[in-house]
Amino acid sequence: MHLRVLVLLLSMMVSSLNSISADEPDARPRTRDLGIAPGVFKPGKSNAITDVAGVKVGQVTLIDGKDIRTGVTAILPHEGNLFQQKTPAAVFIGNAFGKLAGSTQVEELGNLETPIILTNTLSVGTAVEAVVKWSLTQPGNENVRSVNALVGETNDGGLNDIRGQHVRGPHVVQAIEAAQSGIVEEGCVGAGTGCIAFGWKGGIGTSSRTLPQRYGGYTVGVLVQANFGGVLQVDGLPVGKVLGKHTFAETPPVSPPAPLKPGDGSCMIVVATDAPLDPRNLKRLAARALFGLARTGSSYTNGSGDFAIAFSTNPDLRVAYGEEKIQTQPTLPNDAVSPLFQAALETTEEAVYNALLKATPMQGRDGRKVEALPLEPLRALIEKREQSLAE
Amino acid sequence: MHLRVLVLLLSMMVSSLNSISADEPDARPRTRDLGIAPGVFKPGKSNAITDVAGVKVGQVTLIDGKDIRTGVTAILPHEGNLFQQKTPAAVFIGNAFGKLAGSTQVEELGNLETPIILTNTLSVGTAVEAVVKWSLTQPGNENVRSVNALVGETNDGGLNDIRGQHVRGPHVVQAIEAAQSGIVEEGCVGAGTGCIAFGWKGGIGTSSRTLPQRYGGYTVGVLVQANFGGVLQVDGLPVGKVLGKHTFAETPPVSPPAPLKPGDGSCMIVVATDAPLDPRNLKRLAARALFGLARTGSSYTNGSGDFAIAFSTNPDLRVAYGEEKIQTQPTLPNDAVSPLFQAALETTEEAVYNALLKATPMQGRDGRKVEALPLEPLRALIEKREQSLAE
Amino acid sequence: MHLRVLVLLLSMMVSSLNSISADEPDARPRTRDLGIAPGVFKPGKSNAITDVAGVKVGQVTLIDGKDIRTGVTAILPHEGNLFQQKTPAAVFIGNAFGKLAGSTQVEELGNLETPIILTNTLSVGTAVEAVVKWSLTQPGNENVRSVNALVGETNDGGLNDIRGQHVRGPHVVQAIEAAQSGIVEEGCVGAGTGCIAFGWKGGIGTSSRTLPQRYGGYTVGVLVQANFGGVLQVDGLPVGKVLGKHTFAETPPVSPPAPLKPGDGSCMIVVATDAPLDPRNLKRLAARALFGLARTGSSYTNGSGDFAIAFSTNPDLRVAYGEEKIQTQPTLPNDAVSPLFQAALETTEEAVYNALLKATPMQGRDGRKVEALPLEPLRALIEKREQSLAE
Amino acid sequence: MHLRVLVLLLSMMVSSLNSISADEPDARPRTRDLGIAPGVFKPGKSNAITDVAGVKVGQVTLIDGKDIRTGVTAILPHEGNLFQQKTPAAVFIGNAFGKLAGSTQVEELGNLETPIILTNTLSVGTAVEAVVKWSLTQPGNENVRSVNALVGETNDGGLNDIRGQHVRGPHVVQAIEAAQSGIVEEGCVGAGTGCIAFGWKGGIGTSSRTLPQRYGGYTVGVLVQANFGGVLQVDGLPVGKVLGKHTFAETPPVSPPAPLKPGDGSCMIVVATDAPLDPRNLKRLAARALFGLARTGSSYTNGSGDFAIAFSTNPDLRVAYGEEKIQTQPTLPNDAVSPLFQAALETTEEAVYNALLKATPMQGRDGRKVEALPLEPLRALIEKREQSLAE
Repeated sequence: MHLRVLVLLLSMMVSSLNSISADEPDARPRTRDLGIAPGVFKPGKSNAITDVAGVKVGQVTLIDGKDIRTGVTAILPHEGNLFQQKTPAAVFIGNAFGKLAGSTQVEELGNLETPIILTNTLSVGTAVEAVVKWSLTQPGNENVRSVNALVGETNDGGLNDIRGQHVRGPHVVQAIEAAQSGIVEEGCVGAGTGCIAFGWKGGIGTSSRTLPQRYGGYTVGVLVQANFGGVLQVDGLPVGKVLGKHTFAETPPVSPPAPLKPGDGSCMIVVATDAPLDPRNLKRLAARALFGLARTGSSYTNGSGDFAIAFSTNPDLRVAYGEEKIQTQPTLPNDAVSPLFQAALETTEEAVYNALLKATPMQGRDGRKVEALPLEPLRALIEKREQSLAE
Repeated sequence: MHLRVLVLLLSMMVSSLNSISADEPDARPRTRDLGIAPGVFKPGKSNAITDVAGVKVGQVTLIDGKDIRTGVTAILPHEGNLFQQKTPAAVFIGNAFGKLAGSTQVEELGNLETPIILTNTLSVGTAVEAVVKWSLTQPGNENVRSVNALVGETNDGGLNDIRGQHVRGPHVVQAIEAAQSGIVEEGCVGAGTGCIAFGWKGGIGTSSRTLPQRYGGYTVGVLVQANFGGVLQVDGLPVGKVLGKHTFAETPPVSPPAPLKPGDGSCMIVVATDAPLDPRNLKRLAARALFGLARTGSSYTNGSGDFAIAFSTNPDLRVAYGEEKIQTQPTLPNDAVSPLFQAALETTEEAVYNALLKATPMQGRDGRKVEALPLEPLRALIEKREQSLAE
Repeated sequence: MHLRVLVLLLSMMVSSLNSISADEPDARPRTRDLGIAPGVFKPGKSNAITDVAGVKVGQVTLIDGKDIRTGVTAILPHEGNLFQQKTPAAVFIGNAFGKLAGSTQVEELGNLETPIILTNTLSVGTAVEAVVKWSLTQPGNENVRSVNALVGETNDGGLNDIRGQHVRGPHVVQAIEAAQSGIVEEGCVGAGTGCIAFGWKGGIGTSSRTLPQRYGGYTVGVLVQANFGGVLQVDGLPVGKVLGKHTFAETPPVSPPAPLKPGDGSCMIVVATDAPLDPRNLKRLAARALFGLARTGSSYTNGSGDFAIAFSTNPDLRVAYGEEKIQTQPTLPNDAVSPLFQAALETTEEAVYNALLKATPMQGRDGRKVEALPLEPLRALIEKREQSLAE
Repeated sequence: MHLRVLVLLLSMMVSSLNSISADEPDARPRTRDLGIAPGVFKPGKSNAITDVAGVKVGQVTLIDGKDIRTGVTAILPHEGNLFQQKTPAAVFIGNAFGKLAGSTQVEELGNLETPIILTNTLSVGTAVEAVVKWSLTQPGNENVRSVNALVGETNDGGLNDIRGQHVRGPHVVQAIEAAQSGIVEEGCVGAGTGCIAFGWKGGIGTSSRTLPQRYGGYTVGVLVQANFGGVLQVDGLPVGKVLGKHTFAETPPVSPPAPLKPGDGSCMIVVATDAPLDPRNLKRLAARALFGLARTGSSYTNGSGDFAIAFSTNPDLRVAYGEEKIQTQPTLPNDAVSPLFQAALETTEEAVYNALLKATPMQGRDGRKVEALPLEPLRALIEKREQSLAE
């Protein structure tokens, strides 16, 4: 392969992106920097999916030449051998116009046995192959002969030369190996590099909530790959309508080269929690994350492949590969899950805002440029609301 | 039966309710009377599910003594013999903590063969029996030996003596026979009589959208039985947070007698369209209606049995009972459905607001009183936003 | 109601049926009396669903005049308060052309809170109403305001005046109250009274398997309401083809009055086990029960509403109503369930044969008579196979 | 890559396999050569999936050295541009312990836009990547930026060095390009090369049925990748029990190196028909194919990832990519589908027998040898039954 691909590992990203982006991502605020706080619960320490202990995120950003604008984001549910210690998990499908590989086995067996990988639509196969190969070579997996890779995607073909299938196996492995806890880079990174949302630059976003002790004190963290359309609303503020820029406007905001339609795209959502939920209640939790997109103004269009994956990091819920003995497991009953549902709704909402806010303008395929969500009109809307509520 | 049940047919409701309600429902506004317009598309003539030609709604309200606060709402998809001319239909389930009878056959066969009935949780069986009996006796159905009644519910046990199972078969038949086109009564009527939403009085609400001609000019109409909780947001305005009254507030708004939990309840959604959608795309349309609840601030709690039923009134999509010949049917392809999806989202949102706005205070079981959504704070929020946007 | 309905409680059935049936059911063999043993595992003591400890079955048979041929079968998963101590359960749907009420909540919440009731298609509403009322009045349920009745059915309209909706609420309660452990009456009893299977008289059948200790020693019990068609095969013996009597024969075996089609009907399957399976694996177990019908020659026709319900009697898997604390539960991991799956397959197969074998000829609606499966040709096929295998 | 892979295209297979197999596949019979005829309908001309006009099958067999025993089977639903003219399709899942990629989009959109590829478990990613690349380069697809590859698998890790991921992209393209109508090679070819079924050598099998004119005269064709376990029954004959060789025997038949369990494996089923079925009824058809496995004695074990894919070749049901206009489509109503269901059941049954019958013994990984289903005991069972039935 003769491509000179610039691979930016997460650990190197802050410095390297500075020389690439026109706008400085660090100069752009996250949701709460704007003085707004979607929902009613409080975020965790980093306001990120990594606030759920043990969860790590690694990202590889591919930006090269005029038209490579893509990448990989890996989410690791725990620090052990993921195949040998399977994580309870579930998938809720809002719109399966998407290529999420591995979801049916997760549903059937109620568990996850690999990292979760997000990338672009046409690189799912490549990523599955890479995750399988990586899993086979992990210490302890010498006899493994079946691996279910969970790989999701959104279509970055508006800015990226997606037909080039530029994500290669080693990029996937790099993302997995770069995974770390703590702050998660947002915006035009990893699988969010080429994303477009509501006609503005989209990308990766994350957020978290820690429940009050009276609701168990659990943490819920969400990471989104935001690449969809609709009529943007930020914490209830009618941004899309005020700016006249939305999917069903007389002049739709995005005019990607055929055959992408305005408003199409997708949203992949990953939800982590330390609450001891079994796969059935994890699926219900994933559903609420998916419903949360509606609060941002998503139109869930035909082409928007919207999936939510949820997993629990509770170690007592993991099942060893090949286990045949009765397991004794903790589980939270149905009657205790509603606060977690509320958390999933509002965390997803905020993660989408973070993706839009931290994303910087990008020029890509065929010279097309996508602007970042303009901050001044948004700040003005927020300020006016603050004033009116204070009156 | 020695109950003196006050049966109020829809045709008699305007006058009769006046003598019952403390507040006048007619004095209360619908959403657009407040100067707000959720979403981007325009409503149909009556801004009601009956804007979809051929759809009729009939309601029976049961208010008697101190603790009977319940009723029946019937939605008829067309004017012919519903069993002999089956209507294409689908159901999308958001949370199946509910008793919707008949949904699995609708999913399997892709059609609806009875009126859709909404009532209270513990009267579903009674309503199924009644719909079956009614269907058997319709002219032309003399040989029918299988009827799939589609009967949904929400739990009005906060205000209603639901354990009394006061809805009887004749009430169901009355609702069916009272069905008419045109304006649909909203608020504390029919199956919405005893509903509570976001801690305020809930009930029946409806709304519609007519798409621009460039999107096919189709109409989408929605009717909701709003009886759920969360953190109310009205067209993006943070009503629940500002008033400090919501499911996860320090002092939750509703304290129904055990064992109902605050925030629990449910929402049944019925979506009608004249667009020629097959059952698969009707299911996708129903999903968007269900997602639309998130815009109102629903928490989709554990106890909230949220279902959406969608059907198409296109006559060429109906299939005659017992038909074995190949049918030639019009269908809208996947690539044309996104505007309908947006319409379902915003119509559901507005229907919920209409339910809350038109509902009047009610006292019921055990002397408990539920207030109507206060209009002044809402009007103030709307006015301030108008001013700030105009600046 | 002026009907003179002959209600035969299970406890009275052995004696009473003798005076009603032309053929003596006691004179007819069960599967193993014929010397055949479907599958590879051994049956439990009674070779019945009641071999799973704690499971009880009650049946009410309605035979009156020339055309009432119907009834109710109730299966109770444990001996305690079913609502207060919810049983883990799941439903697998093979063909939802059926009216099973309550299945969606069982799927969502993973549990069962009432007896399982089987009856005829047009009496499901009546049975739901009755189960709700019965549940409300059980000691300890004084504050219950939501009950999910699980009521299945098959269509006995070939022999029964199903349009008359002759099953009434008290019959349902009688079936519940008559429930007992031990031997289960089979054939033309309870919900199987008017059933037709493969063109012969069908009805209720049951069977069980106890796994070898190396597979955990668990018991799996199945009860079927067999009312479907296809090409009958008994333990591999081509009965339908040899006798030229099957759904797709030149002259189909059953010609029920229009509009029932030959081969239509349905099969309801109830699977009980004492293995500690969570709802996800119970659903998988139910699936195998449903697949087991294929071994009998079922054609799973369009009109055959085939559902399987599975539950676990393990007391540590029950969850108390309203429970919010973390539960510690035993569960069998995925890697241990295959022997249970095999047991579900072969137990369902044998239960269907038992239904056919124990059913006696019946004359019903419009003078139509349905014969019992003829024993002599079957015995001849079995004997010849025995001889040939012994050679 | 330094492997010397022996790629045997279908067109070259008859001669080349002769030098490899100990047993001659041509010398082995198909089901009907043995004088048995499962089910009640008649097969089409080739008794193969290719009897459905327009359907083509291509296979690539990889046998090299001591431990490469795998391959690819491609099924093409029509002869045009599969992406531009999408084929109505559906998937029914019996047990999702498998890696079928693309199934969720097929379910959501109701169509298929690529060839169906079958291969081994760990090569699904590779095949997805290859199908995407192939699709992008087909004439007319220059602007395509989203491709949903449908790739299924079974685990051939018992005989094949599956961890080596020996299937490469070019093999997938070769299989697609080798696709042809007419006779389909069966047994140890393509994706069936390394398969094991019921403890004997498994592989690819196919069969078809043409319905009598009174049922529409439609053709149903099935292709299976048979790699599963249970208690083998051939047309009702108890082969597994008589030979004492089955999954739950005291000495299970297959002892693959850990961690594969006896009886595990999977079955992929592809069903084609020219009947004008919409995706909803195609899913129901796929279900019956899956149920048909039970007739062969499948135990549908935990590890058996059993999926059925069904599609219709009716050209008027295809929808052009990007189409937004109303389509006028023929569809067969529910009431006419039962004969197709019966056909799917018996065709799947026979396809499995063909896979077992045509498969020849194979030695593979770690020197392990799997025998072919012994013909003499089977012939003896058949003959004795014939004699006894003739008596």
